[in-house]
Amino acid sequence: MSDLLPNFLAGGWQTGTGAGTALRDPVLGNELVRVDASGMDLSAAFSFAREQGGAALRQMTYAQRSAMLGAAAKVLQANRDAYYDIATANSGTVKNDSAVDIDGGIYTLSTYVKLGEGLGERKFLLDGDAVRLGKDASFQSQHVLVPTRGVALLINAFNFPSWGLWEKAAPALLSGIPVIVKPATATAWLTQRMVKDVVDAGVLPVGALSVVCGSSAGLLDQLQPFDVVSFTGSADTAAIIRSHPSIVRHSVRVNIEADSLNSALLLPGEAAGSEAFDLLCKEVAREMTQKSGQKCTAIRRVFVPEGAYAAAAESISARLAKVTVGNPRNESVRMGALVSREQLVSVQEGLRALEGLAVLHDGKTHALVDADPAVACCVGPTLLGTQSADRADRVHDTEVFGPVATLMSYRDPAHALSLIRRGQGSLAVSVFASDIGRCAETATQLADLHGRVHVVTPDVAASHTGHGNVMPQSLHGGPGRAGGGEELGGLRALNFYHRRAAVQASSAVLAALSTSA
Amino acid sequence: MSDLLPNFLAGGWQTGTGAGTALRDPVLGNELVRVDASGMDLSAAFSFAREQGGAALRQMTYAQRSAMLGAAAKVLQANRDAYYDIATANSGTVKNDSAVDIDGGIYTLSTYVKLGEGLGERKFLLDGDAVRLGKDASFQSQHVLVPTRGVALLINAFNFPSWGLWEKAAPALLSGIPVIVKPATATAWLTQRMVKDVVDAGVLPVGALSVVCGSSAGLLDQLQPFDVVSFTGSADTAAIIRSHPSIVRHSVRVNIEADSLNSALLLPGEAAGSEAFDLLCKEVAREMTQKSGQKCTAIRRVFVPEGAYAAAAESISARLAKVTVGNPRNESVRMGALVSREQLVSVQEGLRALEGLAVLHDGKTHALVDADPAVACCVGPTLLGTQSADRADRVHDTEVFGPVATLMSYRDPAHALSLIRRGQGSLAVSVFASDIGRCAETATQLADLHGRVHVVTPDVAASHTGHGNVMPQSLHGGPGRAGGGEELGGLRALNFYHRRAAVQASSAVLAALSTSA
Repeated sequence: MSDLLPNFLAGGWQTGTGAGTALRDPVLGNELVRVDASGMDLSAAFSFAREQGGAALRQMTYAQRSAMLGAAAKVLQANRDAYYDIATANSGTVKNDSAVDIDGGIYTLSTYVKLGEGLGERKFLLDGDAVRLGKDASFQSQHVLVPTRGVALLINAFNFPSWGLWEKAAPALLSGIPVIVKPATATAWLTQRMVKDVVDAGVLPVGALSVVCGSSAGLLDQLQPFDVVSFTGSADTAAIIRSHPSIVRHSVRVNIEADSLNSALLLPGEAAGSEAFDLLCKEVAREMTQKSGQKCTAIRRVFVPEGAYAAAAESISARLAKVTVGNPRNESVRMGALVSREQLVSVQEGLRALEGLAVLHDGKTHALVDADPAVACCVGPTLLGTQSADRADRVHDTEVFGPVATLMSYRDPAHALSLIRRGQGSLAVSVFASDIGRCAETATQLADLHGRVHVVTPDVAASHTGHGNVMPQSLHGGPGRAGGGEELGGLRALNFYHRRAAVQASSAVLAALSTSA
Repeated sequence: MSDLLPNFLAGGWQTGTGAGTALRDPVLGNELVRVDASGMDLSAAFSFAREQGGAALRQMTYAQRSAMLGAAAKVLQANRDAYYDIATANSGTVKNDSAVDIDGGIYTLSTYVKLGEGLGERKFLLDGDAVRLGKDASFQSQHVLVPTRGVALLINAFNFPSWGLWEKAAPALLSGIPVIVKPATATAWLTQRMVKDVVDAGVLPVGALSVVCGSSAGLLDQLQPFDVVSFTGSADTAAIIRSHPSIVRHSVRVNIEADSLNSALLLPGEAAGSEAFDLLCKEVAREMTQKSGQKCTAIRRVFVPEGAYAAAAESISARLAKVTVGNPRNESVRMGALVSREQLVSVQEGLRALEGLAVLHDGKTHALVDADPAVACCVGPTLLGTQSADRADRVHDTEVFGPVATLMSYRDPAHALSLIRRGQGSLAVSVFASDIGRCAETATQLADLHGRVHVVTPDVAASHTGHGNVMPQSLHGGPGRAGGGEELGGLRALNFYHRRAAVQASSAVLAALSTSA
């Protein structure tokens, strides 16, 4: 039997008392390690994090916590090779795709180190300026942001065991909030190892960072009024979290990042072969295949003017045809596996749900390299298409979480916007065009519907950061179907972990308050 | 039978098809008017608001919507006398208490008129500055705030039929979001009349402001992903709203303001008879009796050093003894009625739940002026007390929504803070002392637990705005038991009605975007 990974709770390494759940190599099929949360004293674990971890973190300034996170980033950098090995084995990703998760996570953590330095030697934040509450200035209101005195329970998705950990934990820890992370079981190994390396290095106060792998049973029951929960995963699980009695009763703050049918839009006036056209086709192919399409921000729906449909189908398909699929250990392979058998089945079901659309490029045409089709969770990229997007209901609410997207044509810009709106709220949309004014106008029309609008004009062909790439400087989240959450966005991420309060007092008291901040 | 008030939905006045629920005079007991929402086509009403009202409001700039709200405020000013008459009859409040609701509502609306003027001729807001996403400045991220394209469903409490309407509707309408308000049945008349006056004056686009009185059945079922709900009321109803399928499934944004056991704290070193001591006693008596204690922000728990307990009991009781209770039409009366028979019963039940505490001043000693004790929903103010606050469990989680508070003694500042913390999150706390440094330090220690910290030093004796008075410049809301919501706080209130998005684009596109904002 494989190793049973211990959990780090209440300041100690604790091994589950059950047989555990096996994590597998999605390409070779063998068992790698096991995880188990049976028999953990969760009440003690949450209390320890709140009381020991929270108190220690709150005694530090933002600058001190920034330095602490900087030390954690160094620990991770020193252990990068081990993380790549785990990713290859457990996520089945090629090196470039592992980098999105591993180096993306370290980059995000490092970004918060820099942002934290800028906050300096203070223990709470001023929010805006003092405003008068009467005719004279003797009595005023000053808003402040203070760290919430609870624990941050972070429940993560299988597709980003590293980035998903750090994009949530960095703002939480910088804010002074202790973290308990519960990674998705299928890929929990990398999260557990990163936490272990940081904990063992002793760079964080004990209780600041805990990890529990396996079943999430009982975790939500522990929540108290000043705790917060940040969740990334399915809309079904999100609904369970939102309506959990502890959360409903205690007004526990919840951030949700769920499903999303992200769009790419080629504006009118961009002929086949134009720079904007080529940029769109390139980006769609890249988004479909990076991490085998297992990114919540990946492009799922592609909208082009009617006249560009055939050419776009041809250009994207040609790019997809060149993608070699199979064992990430083979250097000729560009796209590895889906993360598990369950995900493979889910993608196959999603493709069946979309039957009736034209198959513009069929993933089945890709022979697997160095991988046994009976064992490996690999699928080739599939581009579907329709020129009757109004009638294709399912394409606007079926998220196939793999290398699958659907190309659609639209009549005019209003038609395109109405089709995008049928996604009911998404994480990201990208707009491709050369006309600057049109790009700006379209961005404002799409902003209420998306957490992020990514505009690609020919002049940023080399410098744009990619449709699906989540930059820590920008908000990550989206309304409606996407869960309604907000993460990252630079220092905006800290708001979730702080409580805002208005202090109404004399100018002298507010002056003393501001000096102490 | 009394008049059946019509609802304003889908651009027209619609009378319920049922017999309706009677609204009564809580002093005289007679029926005033009836309300009913039976037979309303809510689906059509919500669609109309979203599509007609929303589109019209979004075509206006913030400055134009500010002017529109200014016109609404003028309509309300012109009809103030009618509102005072309704308040006397339906809320049983004396003139000064009616003013808190009526003039407080108009003042809050007028504050947003001024704030809106400052936003100028733009249709969306920039959120912070653009930040670089790479080494050079060619590709950057600019956050924007755009109005959500849905409807704001405002569900209000019985104690503020005017202020509760406008403190929510003003930021919503200024943001460009159509409003459907559902007032609490017991006092729905004033809300309905104010909406009627504004609608009939034609100062808002049709569909921008709707009102439905009576049962809330079916309202939540109408919610869609871009709608928002703002609720003030009980924790039980809040729990129903939070876990409603439409809200859970569609990630509908919800703001909750629920129960609260607000505290007043006299810091150590303030002897009986000191200025700070007197300010505390005066404020506690005022808070207990204003609107018969029916304010979610009213002081419920009073903490003084052990040595000041007896003197505080005496001083507060002496002030309460002078309060005449009864028919608000009698000019000698300082405190009118509770709002309904249900509330009278609820206060009596709350007092029974707190039996075992010392009765420092007994409300039963107040003979009613000009009111029949068998009919009128009047109660005298009651001050309870204990010098064993650690053992008095119920006092920290029983909100008696009437003229009732409990005086408690504490040993040292840490003890006081731990007792206040047992309220599990409140809307407001007030701190009374003369030492500026201590006030500032205490404010920061209480800020995570309260939406507002109100500091009263002797120099602001005349200018401070009152513990329970909600100023639109300051945040209103609180964590945990208080519901976790945020309202008001100046322009911060607009955030709830806007969606934040990051626009990633070339500097040229972002320049065009900023110009159009």
